[in-house]
Order: sequence, then C-alpha cells, then structure tokens
Amino acid sequence: MPKLFKKRTKKIGLPPGSLVHIGEKRAEEIKITIIDYDDMHIQEKEIKTIDECFPFKNKPTVTWINIDGIHQVEIIEKIGKHFKLHPLALEDIMNTKQRPKMEDFGDYIFIVLKIPYCDEKNNKIKVEQISLILGPNFVISFQEIEKALFNPIRERLRNVKSRIRKFGADYLTYTLIDVIVDNYFMIMENLEKRIEDIEEELITDPTSETLHAIHKLKREMIFLGKSVWPLREVINSLERGESSLIKETTEIYFRDVYDHSIRVINTIETLKEMVTGMLDIYLSSVSKRLNEIMKVLTIIATIFIPLTFITGIYGMNFRYMPELNWFWGYPIALFIMVGVGISMLVYCRRKKWL
Amino acid sequence: MPKLFKKRTKKIGLPPGSLVHIGEKRAEEIKITIIDYDDMHIQEKEIKTIDECFPFKNKPTVTWINIDGIHQVEIIEKIGKHFKLHPLALEDIMNTKQRPKMEDFGDYIFIVLKIPYCDEKNNKIKVEQISLILGPNFVISFQEIEKALFNPIRERLRNVKSRIRKFGADYLTYTLIDVIVDNYFMIMENLEKRIEDIEEELITDPTSETLHAIHKLKREMIFLGKSVWPLREVINSLERGESSLIKETTEIYFRDVYDHSIRVINTIETLKEMVTGMLDIYLSSVSKRLNEIMKVLTIIATIFIPLTFITGIYGMNFRYMPELNWFWGYPIALFIMVGVGISMLVYCRRKKWL
Amino acid sequence: MPKLFKKRTKKIGLPPGSLVHIGEKRAEEIKITIIDYDDMHIQEKEIKTIDECFPFKNKPTVTWINIDGIHQVEIIEKIGKHFKLHPLALEDIMNTKQRPKMEDFGDYIFIVLKIPYCDEKNNKIKVEQISLILGPNFVISFQEIEKALFNPIRERLRNVKSRIRKFGADYLTYTLIDVIVDNYFMIMENLEKRIEDIEEELITDPTSETLHAIHKLKREMIFLGKSVWPLREVINSLERGESSLIKETTEIYFRDVYDHSIRVINTIETLKEMVTGMLDIYLSSVSKRLNEIMKVLTIIATIFIPLTFITGIYGMNFRYMPELNWFWGYPIALFIMVGVGISMLVYCRRKKWL
Amino acid sequence: MPKLFKKRTKKIGLPPGSLVHIGEKRAEEIKITIIDYDDMHIQEKEIKTIDECFPFKNKPTVTWINIDGIHQVEIIEKIGKHFKLHPLALEDIMNTKQRPKMEDFGDYIFIVLKIPYCDEKNNKIKVEQISLILGPNFVISFQEIEKALFNPIRERLRNVKSRIRKFGADYLTYTLIDVIVDNYFMIMENLEKRIEDIEEELITDPTSETLHAIHKLKREMIFLGKSVWPLREVINSLERGESSLIKETTEIYFRDVYDHSIRVINTIETLKEMVTGMLDIYLSSVSKRLNEIMKVLTIIATIFIPLTFITGIYGMNFRYMPELNWFWGYPIALFIMVGVGISMLVYCRRKKWL
Amino acid sequence: MPKLFKKRTKKIGLPPGSLVHIGEKRAEEIKITIIDYDDMHIQEKEIKTIDECFPFKNKPTVTWINIDGIHQVEIIEKIGKHFKLHPLALEDIMNTKQRPKMEDFGDYIFIVLKIPYCDEKNNKIKVEQISLILGPNFVISFQEIEKALFNPIRERLRNVKSRIRKFGADYLTYTLIDVIVDNYFMIMENLEKRIEDIEEELITDPTSETLHAIHKLKREMIFLGKSVWPLREVINSLERGESSLIKETTEIYFRDVYDHSIRVINTIETLKEMVTGMLDIYLSSVSKRLNEIMKVLTIIATIFIPLTFITGIYGMNFRYMPELNWFWGYPIALFIMVGVGISMLVYCRRKKWL
Repeated sequence: MPKLFKKRTKKIGLPPGSLVHIGEKRAEEIKITIIDYDDMHIQEKEIKTIDECFPFKNKPTVTWINIDGIHQVEIIEKIGKHFKLHPLALEDIMNTKQRPKMEDFGDYIFIVLKIPYCDEKNNKIKVEQISLILGPNFVISFQEIEKALFNPIRERLRNVKSRIRKFGADYLTYTLIDVIVDNYFMIMENLEKRIEDIEEELITDPTSETLHAIHKLKREMIFLGKSVWPLREVINSLERGESSLIKETTEIYFRDVYDHSIRVINTIETLKEMVTGMLDIYLSSVSKRLNEIMKVLTIIATIFIPLTFITGIYGMNFRYMPELNWFWGYPIALFIMVGVGISMLVYCRRKKWL
Repeated sequence: MPKLFKKRTKKIGLPPGSLVHIGEKRAEEIKITIIDYDDMHIQEKEIKTIDECFPFKNKPTVTWINIDGIHQVEIIEKIGKHFKLHPLALEDIMNTKQRPKMEDFGDYIFIVLKIPYCDEKNNKIKVEQISLILGPNFVISFQEIEKALFNPIRERLRNVKSRIRKFGADYLTYTLIDVIVDNYFMIMENLEKRIEDIEEELITDPTSETLHAIHKLKREMIFLGKSVWPLREVINSLERGESSLIKETTEIYFRDVYDHSIRVINTIETLKEMVTGMLDIYLSSVSKRLNEIMKVLTIIATIFIPLTFITGIYGMNFRYMPELNWFWGYPIALFIMVGVGISMLVYCRRKKWL
Repeated sequence: MPKLFKKRTKKIGLPPGSLVHIGEKRAEEIKITIIDYDDMHIQEKEIKTIDECFPFKNKPTVTWINIDGIHQVEIIEKIGKHFKLHPLALEDIMNTKQRPKMEDFGDYIFIVLKIPYCDEKNNKIKVEQISLILGPNFVISFQEIEKALFNPIRERLRNVKSRIRKFGADYLTYTLIDVIVDNYFMIMENLEKRIEDIEEELITDPTSETLHAIHKLKREMIFLGKSVWPLREVINSLERGESSLIKETTEIYFRDVYDHSIRVINTIETLKEMVTGMLDIYLSSVSKRLNEIMKVLTIIATIFIPLTFITGIYGMNFRYMPELNWFWGYPIALFIMVGVGISMLVYCRRKKWL
Repeated sequence: MPKLFKKRTKKIGLPPGSLVHIGEKRAEEIKITIIDYDDMHIQEKEIKTIDECFPFKNKPTVTWINIDGIHQVEIIEKIGKHFKLHPLALEDIMNTKQRPKMEDFGDYIFIVLKIPYCDEKNNKIKVEQISLILGPNFVISFQEIEKALFNPIRERLRNVKSRIRKFGADYLTYTLIDVIVDNYFMIMENLEKRIEDIEEELITDPTSETLHAIHKLKREMIFLGKSVWPLREVINSLERGESSLIKETTEIYFRDVYDHSIRVINTIETLKEMVTGMLDIYLSSVSKRLNEIMKVLTIIATIFIPLTFITGIYGMNFRYMPELNWFWGYPIALFIMVGVGISMLVYCRRKKWL
Repeated sequence: MPKLFKKRTKKIGLPPGSLVHIGEKRAEEIKITIIDYDDMHIQEKEIKTIDECFPFKNKPTVTWINIDGIHQVEIIEKIGKHFKLHPLALEDIMNTKQRPKMEDFGDYIFIVLKIPYCDEKNNKIKVEQISLILGPNFVISFQEIEKALFNPIRERLRNVKSRIRKFGADYLTYTLIDVIVDNYFMIMENLEKRIEDIEEELITDPTSETLHAIHKLKREMIFLGKSVWPLREVINSLERGESSLIKETTEIYFRDVYDHSIRVINTIETLKEMVTGMLDIYLSSVSKRLNEIMKVLTIIATIFIPLTFITGIYGMNFRYMPELNWFWGYPIALFIMVGVGISMLVYCRRKKWL
C-alpha cells in the first residue's frame, strides 16, 4: 500500500508555514541549474549556492531555475525570501503529500503537480511532486530528485529557432506541464500492457495470483486517478487565463494540454471499466471450474454407485439365492452392470455433462 | 482490446504543434476532391496537388474541400499555411487519438469528430477520425481513408433544387455532421442485432462463449460511449450559436442533430443496461445448472448409499446370522431394498428434486 | 425486446426535413376531428379532407384539430404548409422514434410526448407518440392511431359550465398533457400489480420463470423511465412560462401537472428499487436451496458411509477373525452400527442440519 | 407493500381541481379546533360547523384552525371559498398521495408534508399527510385523522410567557413543522432498534427470516427516504425567506429546522449503508455455512472411502489370497486401516478443516 | 453501533432554544481557562465562575475563553446572555448531536465542528463536538471534556515571537480549526494501520473475524465521512471571506486548511475503495477454499469409487466365476486396481486438481 501519510504526524501542532520536509528521506545533494534565455541569447549553468541565481531575477530575459531536491530547509527558505514567496507556498513545496493545486498569489502563480513513474524494482506506480513558481519573467521548478524528465525541453531551448525561445515564462510553464501530462500517457501504456498480460492469463490459466494482480492494478488506478482529477482542474484554471501572468496567446496552448489531461482521465476511466470486467470474468471462470469439478464428481458417482450396489447384492451371503448357482449368473450380472453403466453414461451425455 | 495509445510515445518531448501522423499506417495515396457551388452553379473536380484548391478560397461561392488521407505531413502543412490554421489544429488533424471537440478560432471553427464503423473481418466496432474546418465560405473535411460516407451529400449538391444549395458553408457542415450521427444509428442497429442473438443463446444454451460475447459487447459499448458524449457537447456548442460563422437560420438544424445525438446516448445507455441484465441472467443460469448437477448427485447418493449399506449387512461373514439361513431371507431383503429405494424417491420428489 | 430503431436506416442520407413515416406500418384511414369552441358556442365535426379545417384558423375561437394517424405524408404536408410549421417539426411528427421534447418556434410551440399503454396480447408495455402544436388560438394533436384517450376531454368541452370552456388554447394543451400523465399512473398500477404477483411467487415457489419475469419487468421499467425523464423536462419548460403563448393563469396548472410528473418519476424509482430487492431475494433463495440439497447429501453420507465401512470389515474373508465366530457377534455389530448411526444423527442435529 | 396509488384511477379524466378524497376510507367525524391568540389573550374552542371559524379571519390576532379529517368535500370546499384558496390547493389537500411540496400563492403559502408513524399492529412504518395554509395572521392545518401530535404546542400556547405567543403565524408554522421533523427522529430511533435486533440475530443465528427482515427494513427506508428529500426542499424554500409572509426574525428558526431535516437525511443514509452491510454479512454467513457442510462431507468421504476400499479388497473371494490365511492377517488389516484413517485425519487437520 | 440519537426523544415538543444537554452524561466539573493577549502582553488564568471572563470582552486585546464541559445549563446561559448569543446557538452548543456547520450572526460567527478520537478501550473511533464563537476580538471554544488538544496552541501563544501573537481572533480561530483537521490525519493513520493488519490477515489466514473487522472498519469510515464532508463546507464558507470578522490576510490560511480538509476527504475515499477491494478478496478467497475442498472430495471419490466397484465384483458369491479360481487372479485384480487408480490420478493431474 502506498503510504498515504508518512511522517505527517510529526507536524501536528506546529504553526502553519513551518518548513519541514515531509516525504522520503533523501541524502543526495541538491542540484540547482539555471537557464536564462531570450530569442537571441541563452546562458546555462549549474550553481553551487542558491545566491548565484538572484541576479537573474531583475533581468528582462526569461530565467528558469530548476531545483532537484527539496529536503534542505535553508535553500527553500532563501529562495522564498528573495522571491518573496508566501510561507504557506514554501511549506507546500517541502511537503510532498500535497494534492495538485494552483494558487494565484498575484505576483506569481504557485502550482503543485504530481508526476507518476513506474518503479522498476517492483513494477509499481509511484508519484513524485513537482512544484512550479511562475513569475513575470522567471520560472522556478522544484523536483524531489534529479530526473531526465525535462532534458528534451533543455534541448529545445538550446535551439535558437524553436518557438519556446520566442515566448515568455508562461510558455515555458506550459511546456513543463505538457511534459508532465505526456508522462501520464507513458504510464498508461504500461498499465495497458499489464492489462493485456492479465487478460491472456485469464483466458489460459487464471490462478489466485491473477486475482491479486487485478486488485493491485485496480488499486494503482484508483491511486493514479486521485492525482489526475485535480491535475485537470489546475490546467483548467490556468487555461481560463484569469491571471495577467499568462498571456492570451499562450492560453490556446494550455487549452491543448487541458484536452490532453481530459484524455488521460477518459483513458483511466476506460481502463478501470476494463479491470472491473476482468474481475467479473475471473469470478465466473472460478465458478465455471467449480461446476466442472462437480460434474466429474457427479458422473463418477452416478455411474459407479448403482454398479457397486449391484455387486453388493450378489455379495450377500443368503443361503437361498438362486442366481448365485446359475451357470450364466456371473456373466448376466456383468452384462447388467455394463448396461446400467452405459445407460448412466448416456444420461450424463444427454445432460451435456460429457 | 482496441489499442488506446498506439505510437503515442514517439511524440513525448516534441514541441507542441509538431506535425506527426499518429494512427494506423496507411500507404494509400491521398485523394482530394473539391466541390464549389452556389444556388446556380456547381463545379466538382478531383485535384492532384493541393495548390489547385487555393484559388477557390476567395470566391464568394461555397467551397468544400474533402481530403481522404491524413498521413502526409506536407499536404496538411500547405493547407495550414494557406488557410492560416493554428499549428495545434494541424497537429490534432494528424493525431487520430483526439477525442471529439470543437474549437472556435474566430476566423474558422475546428471540429474533430469520430465516425464508428463495423469492421467486417472480425465484427468489431472501430472508429475513425473526421476533422472539419468551417470557414466563412469554405469547409475542409479530413478523413483517415476514403469512404462512401459523404456520397449522398454529393448527390444532393448536384441537385439544383435541394435546400443545401441555397444555404451556406454552415449548413454544409450541418449535413456532414448529420450523416456522421446517422452512422451511429446504423452501428446501434448492429449492436442491437448482436444483443438479440446473445439473448437467444442465453435461453437455449449458454456457454462460456456467451459470457465472452457479452463482455466483448460491453467493452465495445463503453468504447463507443466515450466518443458519443463529447460528440453531444460538440454539437451543443455549435447549436448555441456563439460563433458568427453559424447563421441563426442554421441553428435550428443543429438543434435537430443535437436531439439525434441525445437519442444515440439514450440508446447506448439502454443497451448497456440490457447487457448488464444479460450478465445477471447468465450468472444465475450457471448457478442454476450447478444446482441441477447437485440434485442429481444427491438423488443418486440418497437412493443407493442406504441400499448399499443393506447389502453390506448381509455380506458380513458372521457365523450366526439367522436371516441368512431363512428360505425367504433373500426375497425379503430385496423387498426391503425396493421399499427403501421407493421411499427415498418419494422423499426426493416431495423436495421437488425430480 | 422493443425494437429501438425500426426502419430508421432507410432515412440515412436523406436531406433533413424529408417527410418519411417511421414507425409501425398502418393501413387504417386517417381520422380528423375538429372541435371549435368559446365559452358560448361549440362546434364539433369529423372532416374528410384536411382543407376543411383551415377556415377555423383565423376565427377568434379556440380550435382543436385532432389527427388520428400520421402515416400519410400529404396530410401532414398540407397542415404544415397552411399553419406555416417548420419542416423539421413535420419530420419529427412523422418519426415515432422521437424522445419527448418541446420546442418554441415563436408563433407556435411544438411538443412531442410519449403515451404508454399496456398491450393486452402479451401484457407488454408499449409507448405511442403524441405530438401537439400549440398556436395562439388553436391546438393540433397528432396520434399514431385512434384511441379513446381524449374522450373525457371532449365530454368536458361539451359542458358549457366547465372551466375548460373559459380558458384558451394553452389550457386545452394542459388538459391534454394532464390526461397523458394520468395514463402513466395507470401503467404504474399495472406494474405494481405484477410486482405483487411476482413477490408472492418468490415466497411460495420461485422458479427460473420468476427470474425471467423479474428481468422483463426491470427492462420495461428502464424503457418506461427513458420516456418519463424528458416528459418532466418538457412540462418544466412549459411551466416556466417563457413563451407568451402560455398565459400566467395557466402556469399554475402546468406546475400541478409538473408535480404529477415528478411523482411518476419517484414511483418508477421506487418500483425499480423494489425489483432490485426482488432479484436479491431470488438469488439468495436459490443459494439457500443449494445449501439444503447439500445438507441432505451430507446427512446421508455422514450416516451411511461409516456404517457401510463397518459392514465392509465383517465382510472380509480372513480365516482368523474371532468376532465372526462369536455367537453374539452379529447382534453386537448391528448394535454398534445403530449406535454410530444415532450419534451421527445427533451430530447433524447439533449442527442444525435437521 | 405500501399501496402507492390506491384509488388514483378513479380520477383519470376528471377536470383538475375536482375535489375527491383520495386515501384511506374514514368514517370518523371531522373535528375542528380553533386557537386564537396574541401575547395577551388566548381563546380555544372546538367548533361544530366550519362557519364558526370565519369571524376570526379578520381579527388582528393569530388564528390557528386545525382540522382533523379531510374526507368531507363540503368542509374543504367552504374553507376554500372563504379563505380564497386555489382549487388546485384544495384538490391537493384531499389527495393524500401528494409528495411534500410548498407553493407560494402570494396571499398565502400552501405546504404539504408527510408525517411518518409506526403502525403498532404490524410494526410497519406508514406516513400520513399534513397540509398547512399559512396566511398573514392565520394558520390552517389539515390532518388525515386526529392525533396527539400537536398537543405540546397547544400546551405551550396556553403559557402566557412562551415565545410562541409573542411571534406571529409564521412562527406557529415553524413550530408545527419542527414537531413533524422531530417525529422523523422518533421513527429513526425505532428503525435503529430494529437494526440492532437484526444485527444480533445475524451474529447468533441468521435464518431466512433475518433476510426478509433486512429487506423489509430496506424497503421501508427507501419509502421513508422518498418523503424526507422533498421535506428538506420545502423547508429550504421557506428558509430562504422569499415570501413576505415569513418575517426575517423567523427565518433563523427555519434554518434551524432545515439543519434538523439534513440530519434526518444523513441518518437515513447512514442506516441504509448499515443495512446494505448487513446484507453482505448475511450472504457471506450463508456461504460460510455451505463451506462448513462441504467440509464435513469431505472429511467423512476422505476418511471412510479409502477404508471401505480396503475392506472391499479382503472381501473378494479369490481362492488364492495368501493374506487371508495368515494368522495375523486380520489384525494387520485393521492396523493398516487405522493408519490410513489417522493419516487422512492429519491431512484434514493440516488443511484446517478440523 | 454508535448511538445516533441518544436521548434525543426527551426534547420532542420542547420549544426551540430550550437549553438541554444532549450527549454523554458527565460528572466532571467544568473548567474555564482564559488567555488574553496582544503582540506585547499575555495573561493566562483558570477561572472559577464564568463572570470573571466578562471584563475581557471590551478590552482591545484578543481573548480566548476555553470551556471544557458543556453539561451545565447555567454557565452556557450566562455566557449567552453576556455575549448576546442567539438562543438557537446556545441550544446547538449543548446538543452534541449537531453536524458540523457555520452560521454567521453578523456580530459573531458560530461554528460547530467534530473532532474524532480513537477510544483506547475498544479501538473504536468516536467523535466529540467542539463549538467555536468568533467575535471581533474574542474566541470562545466549547469542548465536551478536557483534552490536551489545544495545548500546542497555548505553547505557541506564550512565545512572544510567534506569528499567532501578531494576528487577531480570526487567526486564532484558524489555528484551532487547523489542529482539529490535523487530528483527522492522525485518525486516518490509525485506520491505515488497521487496514494493513487486515490485509496481512487476508493473505495468510482469512477467518470470519476478518470479515467482521472489515465491516467494522467500513462502518467507522462511513461514520467518519459523515463528519468530514460538512467540515469541508464549513471551512469553505469561512475561506470565501464573506464575513468582515475574517480579515483578508487570514483568508489564505483558511484556504490552506481547506486544502487539508479536501485531502482528508480524498484519503477517506481512497481508504473506502481499499476496504471494498478487501471485501472482494475475502469473498473470492472463501469461494476459492470451497473449490479446494470440492477438489479433494472429487479426487478421493474419482479414485476410490471405481476401485471399490472392482472389489465389489470379486466379492460376489456366484458359484461359477472362473477368475476366482485362477492362481494369478488376485494379483491380476490388484494390478488392474493399481492401474485404474494411477490413470485416475493422471486424469486429476491433467485437470490441474493436483
């Protein structure tokens, strides 16, 4: 079971806005990269201390600060101070138990999203949290751990001709969200493959492992669904363009990614219904097997119990049993038994048990 | 299982608006036909290069450009350039995994629809995508593959007196959508026939194939339903007439086709409920059969086990068993056994097992 | 199964507004009756040709034209021309596969309703379509076939003192709809009676026919429900009084019939829930019977299998079996067997199987 | 089954507003009581003819006319005439098949409510209808039969100091509704007790009577729920204070009783979910019992069938069976049988069947 | 079963606003503590009589009056009189059967909340009621019994530097509600642990106790859910900031706690779906076990019944049975039996029963 509230308890009673990292313990060092660009120039560097990124704030170029690792309070605090972020937003960045949400603080928009990935070790679906701060000319993205996720965007940024270089920070935010939504499609392909495997198993040889696999799948889909619905809401509020930080020309792109998020939701719904159907098939295959077992038992019993009764009759020790002394008695008895056996077989066949 | 995301993965990380054909690989040549008409004149031709259709754009007559085949990037690109379509719209035209939607770009309305058809080979329901661009005096329709679908409309266009010649591009769009919705009715007749067949099977001889047929049907209906609900929304937004491209006199026709789409939805819902009821009947017929098998087993056991016990008694080898030496011992024993057997039969009959 | 789309296919590809009768084939002649009245005078006649009714149109009195039979295109066409009805409305009048709806065309309101009736032959619930045109001073009603349905209203019209004579065409429309809603109550009484019958069967002797009766009932209720929900919507839009054709004083009557339609819906919901409960009872009674059968089998086996084993022991032919030669051997063996049998019976009784 | 439409049929075709008593036939005489009060004076009397109450109408004091019995058309008619009530309201008062509703006629508000009570004879829940007319300075309440229901309110009215004496007719209406809602709580306590009883039965000894009791309970809760949801709506529309008949100071009291009605609904929902859970427990206890029976059967068969086979072997009559002539043959055979029996027992125990 | 309406009945017929304590009988003395603070000073004391707290009302500092124990009518009455609280609010404070709600009385906001806790004795989840009165510069909180719940807030208040000292009464209200919502998370951790325990049991050894534990869990979650949904609504109406008592700067904090309440709801929904899945697993494990039992029975019967029949044949006493006199008759018979037994075993193995 995915732990739903790990280490939450330690926060009870703390004042709101207290910065405590809630999530998996990490030892990795935090990695901060900056990409500063406009349609002409681009500058890209990895920095050691967070202070190095502050000068970029007031430049007219678009600055993208990406922070891999959210487990060091001081770094988050410094960023918060410098970019004047609300303490509650900082708290939410560090608490990986948030649900996707979008909050407009006027000067900046704060977005929390979930990115699903498939844990290679046990083929389980997990989610990680990504927080985005969209300011007038900067975007700050926070990831729990370094991932190759945003590399294609970096590639595109390096290309002078790409559209992303011509647009502002809002378009950059859009591309980040687009990549995240695309990730959901990848996860769904994985789910679909697992469903296909289980379906094959269901037809050839359903065991109780199949049942557990179905239930595991169902639970993961419930789990995934919980993060997709609010994702859709987040993108919807971005798309409606109520904030001046998102230009009108960018809205149509958000509408596009909104469509994608709806498709993700529809796909999950369809997969859920498929899994439910699989459960029905499993259960009816189990009951079908019980029927088969019962049929065999009944056939055996129907044929041999009457026969055994006949042998019982001629196994009795009465002194005066004329048949016993007939010369043809034994063959006749065998003959009768064969007849009874065959007629029972015919009966079973007519009942469609054979 | 209908592949839900084939070849989607290859797009992850690409910039939005990248034209990549997503869908079944096709080798057929793309076929472009143009019909240009007003209430007096009509001109109809098949063109080889897409450039031939551009002169029609500025003529006051209504121009309908139909493109069968969406797998060549250049053609889509050229059209996009000439008719000034948004890159995202072009991307959606080529990606056959869209859900039905309608987007108003001001100068033109972009509509994506799904048309269901029944694959003859395996009697499976599939859908194809149809995209429509409705401009002030032109309609561009994109189909995945050439179909006879729109031929009746061409017939009507050729008739000088038909109403379609008197109305504009919006009415043409309506007739196209009307034909598509009518297709759903045809598919539903097919589904209904299959339901009837399965029902007959259920009454005469339900096998596990029946169960699989029911589940296949259910899945196809889920699949179909997913494309009908957004279809309804699309028609609804067209009907509300918020765009100046749709004249008020045409709105009532959209309202009519909107009613049809609701009827399609209602029919699918009804069919779904029928299929669910069929599942119940199947399951209860299986459990009824188990009951029957158990009855036979119990009758056999109830009659013969006591009888065999009696034969067992007189098969014992005690030296002093007076009955064995009676002259009437054997007949009496047989008589008793017949009596026990009959009374057991009566018992079973009273229990309504026979 | 009620045919959901009979003969629909023949319309695919036809231009909208094409008048084609879709529904059961009828040979009966069409019957047209006219009642023209105000609070002083009343004139009632059956006409042969539709033209006879046109002079009434411009008189200030209220005119009710009732047409029994909608299978002749020319008549519908002529009415449409004279009363300036929209082609789509005419098409809907002739297509009996409409769902209940109400459309305000400004000069007149077009209403489609369904009237359920119980087919005597096979005790099945069917629906027929009734279309109403409410103009400023006339009402035109179209029925599929002549029914006694509206006779009580004719009775009331003939009575000078009745309220209906004092009000206008909108009140007449209300009384027509009121009669239709009342019909639903009659159908529901029929359904209720059938539910009661099945319930009795469930308690006394549930067979698989009971199951089929339950499912038939369920399906008919689904079918009926589909026509009631839109009925409610239709009455609701009439009641809200957005059209000037419905006077404010009449609105309260529509509100009353709206309440009735809600009661119809509630009743159907309640009946549905009852039927679902009956299915549960049926299934649990089946499984209870299986339990009983198994109990009998187990009792028989539990008692006689051990006994048969004992007889088996003393049926063995070992030379040295001292018990066989005892004088009391046989009685003791019988005694032991009785003891074992009784203790097994006691065990079964303690397990509450007897 | 509670009759849902008794005697409804006799009304079909009658003009709306026709006064016909629909409900249980009653022979009791109708009892009319009047309480006329302001904060100083109170006058209370039972009247014989309805005319005696008319003089109170124009007095500035608050007048509460309570009518026990609605089966006499003339009385209802006279009241209707004198207080200028709409014919549809009068019809609804006499038709006990209404669902709870509230209608604002401008000069007065017409309220229909249902009051549940527990029929002592068969411990069944029934409902009776109570209609209220709230005028500027009078309240008329109609009950189907005389009940002690409103006696506490009369008590409070007689007390000079009670708040009810200081407020107007709207507050009196509130107290009447409050008493009705309180009645629902009493019914729910009754239901809760019955649920507890059934739960105990479920744990100790579930029989098929338990199942029927559960279903009866479920049905009554469905039935009750149908009257509570509209009750909530009625109170909600009163609370929103759109009528000038309800003073602003009284609204907060209606809000309070609205809260109570929501609690009633929540409680019914909770009880329903409990009952559903009980059904699950019943079904799984039935299947558990089947498992137990099968276990016993299997244990008996597993132990004795192999043993009987062994006795069968030594019951064969071959001439050359050396074991039969061994001196220890019989004890050894017995020994083997005991061994087989014990090992089978051990097997069963390991399978956790014992 | 949690008593849903204890002692409610005694109130029926009482006038609204009557102060009666409804809830568990308590004998503990009521404890009243006052904390009066601004950003500079803080005063904290426990008072004996309620009158001691009145002087604080008119001071500009924020005053928090906490009352542990609501079972003494006089105290509640005095507070109500002094702070001019509405009688209905007072009634609700004393009636612990309220559902969470928020009412804006203009001068003050009245909030009822539920706080869940886990009863140590029987590991059951119970709820207690907490009422809050938020005035311009005071907060009054009512608890059923003294709990350590609010101690961390007291700690923070004593710290001069804490944010809580700088904000007003609305912020204090927020911190109180935040602590309450945090409590729900604790309860959910408890539930999650129990679910994990049951899941382990389900895999290793499901008994009927497991089933009861699942149902108990489900019922408690239903029960808990009922108090969370209105909690969310309460916080939502506070957050929307329609009251002037809640400053704009505090609204963002209420939005944060609103997010938390949504997470609580989502978690409960997820847990519910998990429990439903567990029920499915339990039921299918029960039916799997039945299948296993039947398999064993069938294997035993399939192998030994035919063998016993063979022994029966040679146990017959016919005089002329040539096999009986063969020297190799017995070994051949044994050999045949071994052959039959092995082939039956092979059959069972091929059917995958072994």
